[in-house]
Amino acid sequence: MKTAVLGVSGYTGLLLMRMLYSHPDVDDILPVTSSRIGEDICSIDHGIAGAVKEKLTLTGGKLISIADAAEFKPDVVFAALPHLKSADLCAPFFGRSIVIDLSADFRIKDAHIFKKAYGEKPPREDLLDKSVYGLCEWYRDEIKNSDIIANPGCYPTAVLLPILPLVKEGIIGGTVITNAISGISGGGKKAAVNMLYTERTENTGAYLPGKSHRHQPEIEAELKNADAAMDLLFTPHLAPLKRGIAATSCAGIKNSKAGGISNEKIRSVYDAYYRGSLFISVKGTEIPQTKDVWGTNRCDIGWRIENRHLLLFSVIDNLVKGASGQAVQNMNIRLGFRESAGLRINGEV
Amino acid sequence: MKTAVLGVSGYTGLLLMRMLYSHPDVDDILPVTSSRIGEDICSIDHGIAGAVKEKLTLTGGKLISIADAAEFKPDVVFAALPHLKSADLCAPFFGRSIVIDLSADFRIKDAHIFKKAYGEKPPREDLLDKSVYGLCEWYRDEIKNSDIIANPGCYPTAVLLPILPLVKEGIIGGTVITNAISGISGGGKKAAVNMLYTERTENTGAYLPGKSHRHQPEIEAELKNADAAMDLLFTPHLAPLKRGIAATSCAGIKNSKAGGISNEKIRSVYDAYYRGSLFISVKGTEIPQTKDVWGTNRCDIGWRIENRHLLLFSVIDNLVKGASGQAVQNMNIRLGFRESAGLRINGEV
Amino acid sequence: MKTAVLGVSGYTGLLLMRMLYSHPDVDDILPVTSSRIGEDICSIDHGIAGAVKEKLTLTGGKLISIADAAEFKPDVVFAALPHLKSADLCAPFFGRSIVIDLSADFRIKDAHIFKKAYGEKPPREDLLDKSVYGLCEWYRDEIKNSDIIANPGCYPTAVLLPILPLVKEGIIGGTVITNAISGISGGGKKAAVNMLYTERTENTGAYLPGKSHRHQPEIEAELKNADAAMDLLFTPHLAPLKRGIAATSCAGIKNSKAGGISNEKIRSVYDAYYRGSLFISVKGTEIPQTKDVWGTNRCDIGWRIENRHLLLFSVIDNLVKGASGQAVQNMNIRLGFRESAGLRINGEV
Amino acid sequence: MKTAVLGVSGYTGLLLMRMLYSHPDVDDILPVTSSRIGEDICSIDHGIAGAVKEKLTLTGGKLISIADAAEFKPDVVFAALPHLKSADLCAPFFGRSIVIDLSADFRIKDAHIFKKAYGEKPPREDLLDKSVYGLCEWYRDEIKNSDIIANPGCYPTAVLLPILPLVKEGIIGGTVITNAISGISGGGKKAAVNMLYTERTENTGAYLPGKSHRHQPEIEAELKNADAAMDLLFTPHLAPLKRGIAATSCAGIKNSKAGGISNEKIRSVYDAYYRGSLFISVKGTEIPQTKDVWGTNRCDIGWRIENRHLLLFSVIDNLVKGASGQAVQNMNIRLGFRESAGLRINGEV
Repeated sequence: MKTAVLGVSGYTGLLLMRMLYSHPDVDDILPVTSSRIGEDICSIDHGIAGAVKEKLTLTGGKLISIADAAEFKPDVVFAALPHLKSADLCAPFFGRSIVIDLSADFRIKDAHIFKKAYGEKPPREDLLDKSVYGLCEWYRDEIKNSDIIANPGCYPTAVLLPILPLVKEGIIGGTVITNAISGISGGGKKAAVNMLYTERTENTGAYLPGKSHRHQPEIEAELKNADAAMDLLFTPHLAPLKRGIAATSCAGIKNSKAGGISNEKIRSVYDAYYRGSLFISVKGTEIPQTKDVWGTNRCDIGWRIENRHLLLFSVIDNLVKGASGQAVQNMNIRLGFRESAGLRINGEV
Repeated sequence: MKTAVLGVSGYTGLLLMRMLYSHPDVDDILPVTSSRIGEDICSIDHGIAGAVKEKLTLTGGKLISIADAAEFKPDVVFAALPHLKSADLCAPFFGRSIVIDLSADFRIKDAHIFKKAYGEKPPREDLLDKSVYGLCEWYRDEIKNSDIIANPGCYPTAVLLPILPLVKEGIIGGTVITNAISGISGGGKKAAVNMLYTERTENTGAYLPGKSHRHQPEIEAELKNADAAMDLLFTPHLAPLKRGIAATSCAGIKNSKAGGISNEKIRSVYDAYYRGSLFISVKGTEIPQTKDVWGTNRCDIGWRIENRHLLLFSVIDNLVKGASGQAVQNMNIRLGFRESAGLRINGEV
Repeated sequence: MKTAVLGVSGYTGLLLMRMLYSHPDVDDILPVTSSRIGEDICSIDHGIAGAVKEKLTLTGGKLISIADAAEFKPDVVFAALPHLKSADLCAPFFGRSIVIDLSADFRIKDAHIFKKAYGEKPPREDLLDKSVYGLCEWYRDEIKNSDIIANPGCYPTAVLLPILPLVKEGIIGGTVITNAISGISGGGKKAAVNMLYTERTENTGAYLPGKSHRHQPEIEAELKNADAAMDLLFTPHLAPLKRGIAATSCAGIKNSKAGGISNEKIRSVYDAYYRGSLFISVKGTEIPQTKDVWGTNRCDIGWRIENRHLLLFSVIDNLVKGASGQAVQNMNIRLGFRESAGLRINGEV
Repeated sequence: MKTAVLGVSGYTGLLLMRMLYSHPDVDDILPVTSSRIGEDICSIDHGIAGAVKEKLTLTGGKLISIADAAEFKPDVVFAALPHLKSADLCAPFFGRSIVIDLSADFRIKDAHIFKKAYGEKPPREDLLDKSVYGLCEWYRDEIKNSDIIANPGCYPTAVLLPILPLVKEGIIGGTVITNAISGISGGGKKAAVNMLYTERTENTGAYLPGKSHRHQPEIEAELKNADAAMDLLFTPHLAPLKRGIAATSCAGIKNSKAGGISNEKIRSVYDAYYRGSLFISVKGTEIPQTKDVWGTNRCDIGWRIENRHLLLFSVIDNLVKGASGQAVQNMNIRLGFRESAGLRINGEV
């Protein structure tokens, strides 16, 4: 089992490598970069121990180019590359490898919606219908049969997992109002003044609210898949954390269900949809906190019924379940490995 | 001008002292405590310089009891004491001094609502109608004529200032859905495992959502004062900051106003209500961040129109405009000092 | 293989549980507490997933008392209990189980030095000579043959590992001047005002300097074991981190070696002493940072030669190599398991 | 009184503006930049309130170029510009304005030492002997009579203030070993991957140790001024704070003084040198913490005698006493204003 990680120097690339080093079914990893070809993996990652070299035998631990990686015919390619570039850069692998794309390039099937969010049409519109949206717990069957998996965004993962079952069951409807708080690693590992420690510490506030954030159409498209009448106001916030997303959604309980909704009913819906989903923790009316899932591939879900409204609370680690972890989970599902292989399930103390 | 600060060892007490040290109209300050009487102020506050002693001549910088403070007949008493105890402990000062109470004891005029929130009836129900709710920019005239001023809660200050003018003008109505993020100092300076550095760093999430937090009825009562049909779902969150509250409110634009609402209209409403209010910054569609108001007595306000919804954003420093600063502002208004005396207006760099 | 963790609600206890859940050679874990007997493990640990119950079959995931734990005759007992109480509370297990004590009770063999540091004589002076100081890389052979292992303190682990080989080889001598920076979790999970988030964020400084900290005699005793002429000035500092220790030591190069010391020589000494020690990373003149070892059982070591002085830099995760991780490593060594079983080796991205 | 701030968009420039807005003796401020000429000050500083415009009447709040600033003939120019560029860019002001240079260009009088540290000779070697090293409490008389003031580095300020009096009095000598911990704002406001929030949180460690940091020769030169036999090993560390430096120095007590040194003697030395220095707090054997001086222009000093060694502890806010605050203090001294005008003296609560 040979894997390749394209874009190995960003946070998601680095973390993918971590998971693959300790993955029982992965034999070798190709570390791929565009900018520092030929350097040793240790020169871009000071946190790893020498022992990881055991899984880097094909390149001897050296960073290689995409073209060179293609020569090795990897079984699975993880693309941790920028939006609007990823799909094109993966060209050498389509049809030959399973491609798990962590960018947005295959996430939105409607080219018109994609263009509104990203300013251009999807780079590989021709392959859109061959790709699947890799929200593992929701599209497990489709993932098993697809060779292009669009790994969901971090906010969409946190927001959709608690909402979708309740929409499907007709319990909630209308406009969902979601506020989310994200750690700073969501902004990636690139030099930017407004991501400096000194700018983010002791600082919080909203950004790109309502319909402005690129993840809004991604989430809304999936909501409408479940119920075409759904709508979303989504306001993300930054807070001084490295990792973690806490999403708080407020949805109207449908009139037909009003009065008939109990905590037991909601739990039973989640149990039905997520039975056997190791990474979903249904907390009930206890409200989950991001520390609980730090470093894990979990999504913890809680809720409160407030008369005609339902408040939904969910937390994930944005770099794990919101990116690299879900990507590995997608590989595990696609290839029939144990779904939790290489992934952590217990959070911080 | 003699002032007394009751409860000088908590964060709000310590910060009140800071502001009074540099207040041009304050001549002397009595530092009052229940637990460490006779100690020097420097033993409980390592951040002050020796120079502050100039304003502590009456006690020579020593902490004194409430009874001893009453002997000095202070002109203004700031009570930074626990809820349900503050009003009773202030008994020696009612009728003799202006009392600015930072606890909740006089904030809610309806004894029934108070009891639901705090578990007991208001301790001094007899004085409720002599007290005023000290939201400075909203009740300036009443504050000028009252000797008992109930300093508002931190969340209510941040949430009400952007909403009230729009409710009064009939622009928004119905159920307001507010999510707020608060720094940890909101929990005060008391030993508690879940407020430890190690518990709060890299951790965020909601708590006491919907109608559960004690500040919800305080906010809702003021909303209903402005429009009896208003209602509030309020979900606070903790994030790893020392200071700061960012509130994001979503309200429905009234049908009668739909289509007729523009950013200019909203700005004109705020300008009309807050003209001359030095501590309100109307940012327009730019979204305020807590760093901008760190250490200041400001409330910065922004908004976005999203079809039928209005998103409102406001930030304060919870210890300043949300507590000690607004208390000093209340004193300034009451006594006709310059409203900004002793208060900072520029935030962090 | 049955293990017991005494003191399961503190940070080191919680983290020990984490490691044992995923340890390939551990079959069952007894979670032991004094204060919350009968509660479910999930009630004191919100970060764990349901899956951990597989290893808690003996108690069904319930917390039990020390007396009840003794009934189960565990093979290994980890005592994460307070100093001066731990050794006594472990009485039921001595002679029956391997006891790995994370407190200081067996760390200092000289009762006089112990008493100066802890105010009392060692609680089980009778067992001192049966115990071994569990600094894994230094006393591996002794650990293999001892049933009482005194797990070292966090500062001693970070400070001793880089110094001891150079002392043994006669390269450095005299008074070592060590400054160390520690994360806040070193203070444990107990309610204390000066460990609040609001007290520790944006705050750093020294505490218990020179000879005052209890870890100073523990370190000095081991230095003197290697060379009786050694002496130590040790100044710890707190900084706003959850985890991590960075130690910077300055030692005089012995006259006999002056001129003859090169970076290559120093590297060769470390290579000789730490060959095969998976958790020691010798970084050379590159200076290690705590992020690199976050969550791992590693100690990374760097140095710089400055004329007659040698600067030594070492970093560990205080909760892992400085506590729970080294405890598991001690179990692995004692029982002949793979030394890295259950332990992480790659740090943060 | 007209002042100009060159380099208004960095942290020290922004903070200088803050202090000048509230300085009682400053009438107008010219905000100068190279890159965003013509923009409004509010576009680069979101933390200020509209009220600051009162002191920006000459430019109407617009950023101007150095050439335009020179036309206004400012009385005092603060240069918050990069090393090796600052002195040249200040050319239009020499001989016409008092120049307070926050860069290193005039800090080191020995051109050879400067070149070793900065790679080039001092840009205005011709003016070196007309400039004074602006360590306020040490060179107050020289500052009163100089028109070029080299504002000291942040580390030198923190390290020198506790050491110099004791060197002058012949109490300590030989090699001083200093370890310092600095907040991240010391790195300035420029985009750099290793200053990102995600890189610095939960991370600490040394950098540029021994003789490598550019501030080492600056400190050592001043030590040798006081006693030519002094020498310095200086190891700075970064920790996750925005502001603050804590320096811990270990020096040998001279043989002639051994036995004769008491805490009282040391206090009497500091009292003699720093009597009337409002910004020096002599704490005795209590160890200062950075929170105590956050936002202030203070340097707090503590110490411990450890046999033949003296441990010295000092803390400052690196952006205030370590940069902008000391610059304002220098202006105050030079122009005979109250030395504390525009400066804060009480720290964080």
